[in-house]
Amino acid sequence: MNNYKIVIQYDGGRYKGWQRQGNGDSSIQGKIENVLSEMTGSTVEIIGCSRTDAGVHAMSQIANFRISEQYSAKEVKNYLNKYLPHDISVIACSIEVDRFHARYNAKDKTYLYKIWNKEYTHPFMRKYSMHVEQKLNVAAMKQASSHFIGKHDFTAYSNAKSKKKSMVREIYAIHLEEEAGFLQIRVIGDGFLYNMVRKIVGTLIEVGSGRIKPDHISGIIESKKRDQTGPMAEAGGLYLEKVKF
Amino acid sequence: MNNYKIVIQYDGGRYKGWQRQGNGDSSIQGKIENVLSEMTGSTVEIIGCSRTDAGVHAMSQIANFRISEQYSAKEVKNYLNKYLPHDISVIACSIEVDRFHARYNAKDKTYLYKIWNKEYTHPFMRKYSMHVEQKLNVAAMKQASSHFIGKHDFTAYSNAKSKKKSMVREIYAIHLEEEAGFLQIRVIGDGFLYNMVRKIVGTLIEVGSGRIKPDHISGIIESKKRDQTGPMAEAGGLYLEKVKF
Repeated sequence: MNNYKIVIQYDGGRYKGWQRQGNGDSSIQGKIENVLSEMTGSTVEIIGCSRTDAGVHAMSQIANFRISEQYSAKEVKNYLNKYLPHDISVIACSIEVDRFHARYNAKDKTYLYKIWNKEYTHPFMRKYSMHVEQKLNVAAMKQASSHFIGKHDFTAYSNAKSKKKSMVREIYAIHLEEEAGFLQIRVIGDGFLYNMVRKIVGTLIEVGSGRIKPDHISGIIESKKRDQTGPMAEAGGLYLEKVKF
Repeated sequence: MNNYKIVIQYDGGRYKGWQRQGNGDSSIQGKIENVLSEMTGSTVEIIGCSRTDAGVHAMSQIANFRISEQYSAKEVKNYLNKYLPHDISVIACSIEVDRFHARYNAKDKTYLYKIWNKEYTHPFMRKYSMHVEQKLNVAAMKQASSHFIGKHDFTAYSNAKSKKKSMVREIYAIHLEEEAGFLQIRVIGDGFLYNMVRKIVGTLIEVGSGRIKPDHISGIIESKKRDQTGPMAEAGGLYLEKVKF
């Protein structure tokens, strides 16, 4: 058996998220596993680096799986691209050392959030960004974002359904960048709780709209109360952009 | 009455093209006219600068219309953006001199065609570009494109249903540019026949794939035979990008 690594790009709009559920027809993981099982004639399980939520996109999701060494990396890539739906693409495939593990070996992850900050909608990006009509105060958002940096218990920024043992995560950096009508927010960390990035961005939007003060952020984190944050930002604006190993 | 000019951006994917047909529900022009008639309480007719085909997009379509001077340009823009569907946006509105005419005053038009030239699909751009798997020979396409420049009878590059009196059009320039997996083709001219840009691009793709030789282009134009050109490139890759007045 070889250990294959794939780099996947997808439009999450039609899917219930990365993680397989039931027969897998509504998850990205399931779609890929089904094609690989079809190719090899036996059940294949793939390990994804980051479990993106329903509707969230990926520019570079990483996964690994073990299948018979009779397949070259190029054959695997071509087969997947031939049979996967057009909103999921395998942009690279390689054979890795046996101990390579897409989840355990991931060092830091970058999520990118795109806000279209104009009074009118962006016809081509309406499914790939969140439209905020009110002009956001980016300086205040930058100030607020600094309070998320570091190791914190992010219970307030988690989903109530989350069953993780530890709610502690470390955020290394948050970058805000304005470009041609878009406000792009990059959140870099060692890992994220379910819905966490969207709750952070939702809170930053509240700050940018003047409804939450930048220096209230630390208090919200410390409160561990989920009802203190801003509402979750829309799934369609979020992308898993980069993973470092 | 004031003469209003609007700059419109749209995703043409859901529409039968710019031009109103019947009750207008399936055309961009019709959608805009219906909102303006709703706003003013009387029938409004708008003049578009370029009639984009079914499925073709616009980054900057220009139109003008006359309505009561009680409305400020800002009011018109806001009303349209409030009631138009999310795939049509009015990005600017101004009041012009009475003789301004979006079609007659247009000097040159730039159409942009996006080809995604990789072996796998682009999940986010699959509806906004044409996917060509085979690596295209861009040098040959550049050579071929030079033969379209100038004033020609473009019957071969028109649609058989076209009822225009004159098939003569002038192409000022064709630019090909490779960028991050995309091949972008800009065709600049004084005007275009129905389907003409898509037939030119389709022919360039045939040249890039080695099925038509660059120096056969002039002969195809001179033949005036529609079956000599390449097949029409997909509507989803085409954008009305810019209009000069």
